[in-house]
Amino acid sequence: MSSTTLPPPHPDRLLPADPATRELARELLSCVESLPIVSPHGHVSATMISNDTAFTTPADLFVSPDHYVTRLLHANGSSLASLGVGVAAEPHEVWREFCAAWHVFDGTASGTWLVAELHDPFGIDDTPTAHNADQLYQRIMTRLGEPSFRPRALLDSFAMEVLATTDDPLDDLSAHRSLRDDATFACRIVPTFRPDAYVNAHAAGFVNRVDRLIDEASEGRSGYDGYLAALRHRRQFFIDAGAVAADHGVRTPLSLRLDRSSATSLFERLRRGDVSRDDRDAFEAHMLYEMARMSVDDGLVMTVHPGSLRNHHPDTFAQYGPDSGHDIPIAVDFTTSLRPLLSDFGTEPGFHLVLFTLDESTFSRELAPLAGFYPSVYLGSPWWFLDAPDALMRFRSAVTETTGFSRYGGFVDDTRAFCSIPARHNVARRVEASYLARLVGEHRLSLARAREIIVDVIDAAPRRAFKL
Amino acid sequence: MSSTTLPPPHPDRLLPADPATRELARELLSCVESLPIVSPHGHVSATMISNDTAFTTPADLFVSPDHYVTRLLHANGSSLASLGVGVAAEPHEVWREFCAAWHVFDGTASGTWLVAELHDPFGIDDTPTAHNADQLYQRIMTRLGEPSFRPRALLDSFAMEVLATTDDPLDDLSAHRSLRDDATFACRIVPTFRPDAYVNAHAAGFVNRVDRLIDEASEGRSGYDGYLAALRHRRQFFIDAGAVAADHGVRTPLSLRLDRSSATSLFERLRRGDVSRDDRDAFEAHMLYEMARMSVDDGLVMTVHPGSLRNHHPDTFAQYGPDSGHDIPIAVDFTTSLRPLLSDFGTEPGFHLVLFTLDESTFSRELAPLAGFYPSVYLGSPWWFLDAPDALMRFRSAVTETTGFSRYGGFVDDTRAFCSIPARHNVARRVEASYLARLVGEHRLSLARAREIIVDVIDAAPRRAFKL
Amino acid sequence: MSSTTLPPPHPDRLLPADPATRELARELLSCVESLPIVSPHGHVSATMISNDTAFTTPADLFVSPDHYVTRLLHANGSSLASLGVGVAAEPHEVWREFCAAWHVFDGTASGTWLVAELHDPFGIDDTPTAHNADQLYQRIMTRLGEPSFRPRALLDSFAMEVLATTDDPLDDLSAHRSLRDDATFACRIVPTFRPDAYVNAHAAGFVNRVDRLIDEASEGRSGYDGYLAALRHRRQFFIDAGAVAADHGVRTPLSLRLDRSSATSLFERLRRGDVSRDDRDAFEAHMLYEMARMSVDDGLVMTVHPGSLRNHHPDTFAQYGPDSGHDIPIAVDFTTSLRPLLSDFGTEPGFHLVLFTLDESTFSRELAPLAGFYPSVYLGSPWWFLDAPDALMRFRSAVTETTGFSRYGGFVDDTRAFCSIPARHNVARRVEASYLARLVGEHRLSLARAREIIVDVIDAAPRRAFKL
Repeated sequence: MSSTTLPPPHPDRLLPADPATRELARELLSCVESLPIVSPHGHVSATMISNDTAFTTPADLFVSPDHYVTRLLHANGSSLASLGVGVAAEPHEVWREFCAAWHVFDGTASGTWLVAELHDPFGIDDTPTAHNADQLYQRIMTRLGEPSFRPRALLDSFAMEVLATTDDPLDDLSAHRSLRDDATFACRIVPTFRPDAYVNAHAAGFVNRVDRLIDEASEGRSGYDGYLAALRHRRQFFIDAGAVAADHGVRTPLSLRLDRSSATSLFERLRRGDVSRDDRDAFEAHMLYEMARMSVDDGLVMTVHPGSLRNHHPDTFAQYGPDSGHDIPIAVDFTTSLRPLLSDFGTEPGFHLVLFTLDESTFSRELAPLAGFYPSVYLGSPWWFLDAPDALMRFRSAVTETTGFSRYGGFVDDTRAFCSIPARHNVARRVEASYLARLVGEHRLSLARAREIIVDVIDAAPRRAFKL
Repeated sequence: MSSTTLPPPHPDRLLPADPATRELARELLSCVESLPIVSPHGHVSATMISNDTAFTTPADLFVSPDHYVTRLLHANGSSLASLGVGVAAEPHEVWREFCAAWHVFDGTASGTWLVAELHDPFGIDDTPTAHNADQLYQRIMTRLGEPSFRPRALLDSFAMEVLATTDDPLDDLSAHRSLRDDATFACRIVPTFRPDAYVNAHAAGFVNRVDRLIDEASEGRSGYDGYLAALRHRRQFFIDAGAVAADHGVRTPLSLRLDRSSATSLFERLRRGDVSRDDRDAFEAHMLYEMARMSVDDGLVMTVHPGSLRNHHPDTFAQYGPDSGHDIPIAVDFTTSLRPLLSDFGTEPGFHLVLFTLDESTFSRELAPLAGFYPSVYLGSPWWFLDAPDALMRFRSAVTETTGFSRYGGFVDDTRAFCSIPARHNVARRVEASYLARLVGEHRLSLARAREIIVDVIDAAPRRAFKL
Repeated sequence: MSSTTLPPPHPDRLLPADPATRELARELLSCVESLPIVSPHGHVSATMISNDTAFTTPADLFVSPDHYVTRLLHANGSSLASLGVGVAAEPHEVWREFCAAWHVFDGTASGTWLVAELHDPFGIDDTPTAHNADQLYQRIMTRLGEPSFRPRALLDSFAMEVLATTDDPLDDLSAHRSLRDDATFACRIVPTFRPDAYVNAHAAGFVNRVDRLIDEASEGRSGYDGYLAALRHRRQFFIDAGAVAADHGVRTPLSLRLDRSSATSLFERLRRGDVSRDDRDAFEAHMLYEMARMSVDDGLVMTVHPGSLRNHHPDTFAQYGPDSGHDIPIAVDFTTSLRPLLSDFGTEPGFHLVLFTLDESTFSRELAPLAGFYPSVYLGSPWWFLDAPDALMRFRSAVTETTGFSRYGGFVDDTRAFCSIPARHNVARRVEASYLARLVGEHRLSLARAREIIVDVIDAAPRRAFKL
């Protein structure tokens, strides 16, 4: 295994091989490659940016917090402990283990991003191996000590214009507020309201969190009324701090409209623990409906990320906690699940609902038809396992013939891997250029129009869908 | 947004970019591009053809009745009322709204058809815009006044050889009969028996329609026996008027064999309204089974269009009626659902069952395996949201490796958009040429054999499957 | 229909048309085209190899036992009886029927294999037709009489290194033992433990088979304990005879952990016939779980083939028996179904679980994410209807971006069609070369690394996953 694993990023990487189509793709890519990044959904920490905390080690930057990376290393025989997932680990050893197993990322989306990240900003084109691991570690450490490698400087170098974080409803958003008030920092960091922990009635600790929410934010009201009031109140608090969206990570997109008295009674039974599994499902479905109602009222864009069975392996969850790499997708039905919600809110002026999926079979079957009728529904970009060059292309091919380009919600990187942000956006731009180049080459679009479309898709779409 | 949206139809449009493959595709396309059109399933009005009624306005021809077009305009902010859907609207204004939003069709199947339709027969290559809308309106109006733009003359110019309509079982088919008796009109217009309104036990007004069916067609028999007799009688009436097929638009392809006494008792309870939701489902499943039995007996080809949740948005349905653009697909199971029907009729000589789907995941998983065993089962061409260049190609790639070409039911345009008929068939021919060109280029077929296959797929397949 | 149907196998067959990509694919193919064949799952008879029985007729070699071939002939109008399926038939007539319908295989995977098989080893490049059928029959018969066309000589000429059979747990494996002891025969023939008939509680005759299993192998223990002991005992017997894997053909991959007393009581009720349909499902799910436990203990690789509804057409099953061409896939859920099994065994050292599917929608949604976390889970190669050039390519595109290449279980031919074995492996090698050529052409991998990967995927992957 002595050969170079991945070449350094080639200017034509990910562009189609046919020479004429590649030439068109290059031309289209040139329209967008250097545009600023608008990132309306992700998992970077606002506090880290606010404090401009230097990154500590290559292990913390590239390996331990990135479950895309650690899961595949785990599948190939590493223990999560040795990768520093959820537990402390010696960073040199984490890095060595990562470098020694570099080949497992060949052909993966993560591999593509990692190559780009090492090259830019770190200037590393050597393939990591067990042999050069320590040397690479040192080279990266040297850089991490430089001012230009602090989070804010990196965001500047990424040309980040907007970066959304994902936050607990009771977060005080002080980091966001201080960033907003800082005239020396141009990038707009906006919080996202993520109420899962307060509406997911199956989660351990749900009742305690609800109690705390009511205590802190209901302004004296109690019970179900206080609960709704507290959620509304915190949403407004987020809006005041710059939030544009509320995000909902649900197992299924089931929605249900309960009348007030049924909802109240179910809520009280939940707090007493006097409920069945179906009751908990019903409450969650009802709350998805209520969250849509609140979005109609307060204007927060509603984003829904359904269809992941979280923490599939109980022992790993017990030992390493959530987001440790074993959330596994399930088949999802949007059409019937969302019908109650869309029946009542789907044509409400100003309501924006961005739907994400991990189930490709819904691309053409459900999502494109829904977004092709409801003015509120936007197509979320391919998510997680599907945020990868071929999968992005399958998405384009599956939805565009029904919805065109106008119903797209824009690319979303959805990442906690800081340095992968520009790499991910760059990949998405290359895929759009390649797709449009094919349409032009097949005489389905003029080149002039394709130039306009790629700018719209990359730059205008996320601003439009996320009200930026 | 000043550029030309779509170029006028290019001779190589939709053909693959690789030069050698394109050359093969051109050669294969030339074998079929000018063949007559056989259209065994669609929604054009026989009365309009019989009366040879001139089209009234561009809005009525291109916009208001075409839910492919109006749904996407609606998603992008138009009200259905302003598009003349289900209500009267000023046609100039409908047309202006359509032209101003022309860009939303970029990359869509509808966009491809519309460009072709404006070019031929209307000679228009200008991209519609808000600015040229009135001028285009006038140019089209001028043409619509000419004799060569009447329905019959257009059908002649389309080289239509067979055109099937879709009709209510109690239709008197007088238009079909007069067309058949008209020696001056060569195109064969055949009715299709569509009994949904009389077998869908969930639909409002079901019982009244059943009563009327029994009154008008049971020849004195009553109850369940009279109901079946009336259906049989009307099928024969359709056959006598030239029908070759019966079409079934069902939510699911569930089939169920009830014995006569159970069916009779369920039917009586249905008429009294003394039924559960499950009872209604059971009746529908039983009637799909009975319809197959009738097809075995009388030879009408059975076509099934399952998996659309009709009228997803209740308010829109209440205001604008059915077919207003919010029928949304759901996941479909064919394998277990059709088992009762296929167990009893799947190998019956002469029985033809053409299966359509909106759920791509069934292409390779269920439809190709079923059509690859049962002599009765034919693969319906990709339907509705899937009648689009890339989706047609995915269908070919997904089913051909299991079933070859012989189990294909032929392309079906399934449209009420009159001028789109030749455009749709032309797109299908281009996709077949492109697919076969790839197989030839990859040395999977000889060019000589591919020439034979494309003629068979385009011309012979629909005649074979639909007994034309 | 006079043209040549399929050209003789072209050196570039199945390689991509773009000239530069094809050149890369040729180069990558050359790294693996002549490597020995490792075939860790299939349905060839060990007795036939042990006895080195000459093949009798072209009909028996190419048609009657191959349900891929007979099903499509049946769909196109042949009776299974006339093809010699499950009943005796005059072989000349079977062969004539096959040759006359040769065109139905155009574009199919079977067609690709058949062309290759006729060419090599039989030296036939003529397209079979009704006219040359008798002459081809004679040419093949002549060859079948030659020593070099006996099974062992053919396996040598195929460069078979390992060939796994699939065997009943009570098989005495004498053929395997005699082959292993035969120093003149180099190919390693290994049995595979397939306990379906003894764990599928829905199958007719289940209780009798279980009784016999306990009688023969429980070493005096009785009841549920004896049943488990007998299974363990026979697994060890297989291991001693060279087995590396146990194969499980289940309708769904549902797994369930019953405690010992529940399992015992359910088992006793099953033997008395005192069970519901759900009870039978529960027992099967529990036994899939127990089989995983046994694999953890004894090291047999566990392979699971779920999602086929066997014997869809009851009359055909009654007349022709199982494997007569009407097993039809259904949608499958792996994520929730396998959770009990993976929760307890998914991270057990040495446990290997190879998952196959007939449901493409699970490629990216479930299988890649599972194999991308659990060290035990390997991706089975596309199975049955999906073992075809385009489907293999869709698999690669769907899973590689999540799992890379390291989680692949290697190509499996899974066939009883003896001469198709090298043809199938050759197709898989061409697809891998084409896929990797695209990645190299798109600058996603270096050519040097792609050369290493293709050797790993073709040669090392099956050895790794199947512990060979």
